[in-house]
Amino acid sequence: MQGTKPKYQQVAEKFAKLIEQGVFGPGDAAPSVRKLSRQWKISISTVLKAYYLLEAQELLEPRPRSGFYVKKSLSHTPPEPELSHPSPDPQDVGMRELITMIILRDTMNPSLAQLGAGHPAPELTATRTINRLMASAARRMGDRAGLYMPPSGHQALRRQIAKHLVTAGTSLQADEIIVTAGCGEAVYLCLKAVCRPGDTVAVESPICFDVFQYLEHLDLKALEIPTHPRDGISLEALNFALDNHRIQALVIISNFNNPLGSCIPDKGKQALVKLLKRYQVPLIENDIYGDIHYRDRRPLTAKSFDTEGLVMLCSSFSKTLSPGLRVGWVAAGQHRSKVEWLKFTASLAVSTLPQQAIASFMSQGGYRKHIDRIRHQYQQRIAGLRRAVIRHFPSSIKVTDPTGGYLLWIQLPEIIDALELYKTALKKNIAITPGHLFSTGERYHNFIRLNASNWSEEAEPAIERLGSVISFMLDS
Amino acid sequence: MQGTKPKYQQVAEKFAKLIEQGVFGPGDAAPSVRKLSRQWKISISTVLKAYYLLEAQELLEPRPRSGFYVKKSLSHTPPEPELSHPSPDPQDVGMRELITMIILRDTMNPSLAQLGAGHPAPELTATRTINRLMASAARRMGDRAGLYMPPSGHQALRRQIAKHLVTAGTSLQADEIIVTAGCGEAVYLCLKAVCRPGDTVAVESPICFDVFQYLEHLDLKALEIPTHPRDGISLEALNFALDNHRIQALVIISNFNNPLGSCIPDKGKQALVKLLKRYQVPLIENDIYGDIHYRDRRPLTAKSFDTEGLVMLCSSFSKTLSPGLRVGWVAAGQHRSKVEWLKFTASLAVSTLPQQAIASFMSQGGYRKHIDRIRHQYQQRIAGLRRAVIRHFPSSIKVTDPTGGYLLWIQLPEIIDALELYKTALKKNIAITPGHLFSTGERYHNFIRLNASNWSEEAEPAIERLGSVISFMLDS
Repeated sequence: MQGTKPKYQQVAEKFAKLIEQGVFGPGDAAPSVRKLSRQWKISISTVLKAYYLLEAQELLEPRPRSGFYVKKSLSHTPPEPELSHPSPDPQDVGMRELITMIILRDTMNPSLAQLGAGHPAPELTATRTINRLMASAARRMGDRAGLYMPPSGHQALRRQIAKHLVTAGTSLQADEIIVTAGCGEAVYLCLKAVCRPGDTVAVESPICFDVFQYLEHLDLKALEIPTHPRDGISLEALNFALDNHRIQALVIISNFNNPLGSCIPDKGKQALVKLLKRYQVPLIENDIYGDIHYRDRRPLTAKSFDTEGLVMLCSSFSKTLSPGLRVGWVAAGQHRSKVEWLKFTASLAVSTLPQQAIASFMSQGGYRKHIDRIRHQYQQRIAGLRRAVIRHFPSSIKVTDPTGGYLLWIQLPEIIDALELYKTALKKNIAITPGHLFSTGERYHNFIRLNASNWSEEAEPAIERLGSVISFMLDS
Repeated sequence: MQGTKPKYQQVAEKFAKLIEQGVFGPGDAAPSVRKLSRQWKISISTVLKAYYLLEAQELLEPRPRSGFYVKKSLSHTPPEPELSHPSPDPQDVGMRELITMIILRDTMNPSLAQLGAGHPAPELTATRTINRLMASAARRMGDRAGLYMPPSGHQALRRQIAKHLVTAGTSLQADEIIVTAGCGEAVYLCLKAVCRPGDTVAVESPICFDVFQYLEHLDLKALEIPTHPRDGISLEALNFALDNHRIQALVIISNFNNPLGSCIPDKGKQALVKLLKRYQVPLIENDIYGDIHYRDRRPLTAKSFDTEGLVMLCSSFSKTLSPGLRVGWVAAGQHRSKVEWLKFTASLAVSTLPQQAIASFMSQGGYRKHIDRIRHQYQQRIAGLRRAVIRHFPSSIKVTDPTGGYLLWIQLPEIIDALELYKTALKKNIAITPGHLFSTGERYHNFIRLNASNWSEEAEPAIERLGSVISFMLDS
């Protein structure tokens, strides 16, 4: 079901293997672009792209007027952060002021280098295509294009979503899916469907601040569960929490947690669903980054292991197709009809044309091709940003090495306050996202989230400036 | 600030005055179309349109191959319903099942004659134009058309809304306005901003079922206030309620209440705001039908009389431009920043392109022209439907005579159960809206709401069938 890997990536992997096997040793010159093109019977541009990728992966380095060389020494590779240690007790949520300031004020400011906000790269969205499809649907339908949609959404779109989910190992009927105004509304409606004010909701820690906003909006308490930067939520810790607290729901970002980049292994997902089933606690699973996987196989959803409708799977097209469309969806299992009613009574239905345009795009196979293109682009951008961070930040940092999405989570030395760093960076026209937004306490006061989606070499000076600010703060 | 009245309407009014003054008596032939065209120096088509309007208003009647005649006798004109008498105590709301069945199932069924659902007429929306503007904004903006909008909405649209509101006597800054997913979300967010679960909210009675859905969703109690079919909410009754209950907010549809068609006179609005100010109770004012006024002057909003930000004005383009756009707005006064935050945390922001398209349409003067065109069309359709109802329903009914909007509220004899009528009509492929949906009790069990938006002479047989069903129910 997966798209074929681009040629240049296959070439890069083949060459990386040669380095690994010692065929090319440290400091050796790689074959010239022309030569490899001839030898391997591939185009010049494929070789070039492969070499660039290997450069991004820190295996080759270019020397001016002399071609590519295997790097003499692997640069210092910082470790990833450890399993998180959030507060063991449910906490009231009160992050409104901070979030409003940082997210509403600064991420919309076009004069800043936006290294923090989790927006996708405009040129890696399918905005133009979707807009063309909207225009043609509008012409085709005339006045009828303006009618209300049913609250559950456009039937053709729901069918396409169900079909696409097969790639994530998930088998759903179109009728189980409800279209929402983005993934955010989906998570919000699920929380609303299964919780009452005052209830406690377990969440991965760290997790994106939007979840805390929904909790605050709905008067719910957050119980943050230790989470590993590679494998996601700790099942042991969750089990302990379930034994000791009355938990009404669990919210996770199963594939490429924002900000952590963690991806729960398939077996972990299966065990998670089994554990929650034992306690009859619903799982609200956010899979918004799942399609942006770097490896061949798309990771499964936890929903794939759900036999009794306890998992509420939420996602959206905001990260892959276009954020401004505001089209997401939820498969709410047992709570489907309640969620549909809540959707109907909160905002009636999602706009008509975007739903039709996305359905057309998917039915023509455009969505599959599009994500196959962008996920490799994001992989390269993450590699580039990560390399720049390692080059310009103090060597004592820890940084994640995600296998999907486009976010990095960076642990700075204890004495750095990320909010102070945020404010100082702002004066230098750089916007980052301080760790304070990803937990109710100040647990991540020395962490920052960076976004690789807008990464290019032109952004390197901003990372360099940021590194200097951190060094200055360490010294003073 | 008002658009000029169309010529044909001026002609119709001039001729109506001649009938009123007895210049043309009952049974007299009206001048032939050619003759009047020559005498009054107006085009043939203007005379024809004027005569059709006079026919809709029951002043003229056409005779085949013989022209128009003044009607011999005014047909029986039924009275309007009286001031409503809802339950004097706050009520829990539990209408989910009924609303889901009627609204979600039946109003979307294309094989039914839709005489109930409150949708606007597709051909009287501006769907095509707005969609063309969306397409051109999409082309102009390229990838940028896909970016997230700020939660408060597109600045240019908010400016246009503020400018348009001058026609409703309302003076607002663009920054006071927040764009929402329709008027429904606006009302929902306002309720959420000022109420806590268990609180009591006063509402006009009858009022459209969506309000009851928001109350049920938010766990609020409804206190229904007697409301007059012409002048809206009874201030005496409201005053009494405020003295006897702890009321957290009042929800009204100030101009052309759905289903009642009532419009609170300007002085009444002023007194209402003054009364609420005394009790410091916020007013959630739904003005969604305000632009569809039949008379020359657009009615004011209650917000126009608000000096301290106690009125939260909600509206939308769903009834005038296109329901599927899902673009509405709220000016929430004192509660602006809370509502903005709730919008942000419930569904982030409204789709990008529809906001831009509506802003363009308004800035080019298209919106003003559009509503001037459609409000006269709706006036004619209401007159036509009302005439058909009077012709085919038992003479003991009471029926409203609204001065705006496109809805009729009809009181049937006590022994008729509107829900039973609804079910019987459904078998004859007619969908109406039973009165049960407009109150928490069965207060309006013998009322129905009809929608004139799809009215044309072809719909007359459906009204005739409906009349037969009612007569049959009366007889059996």
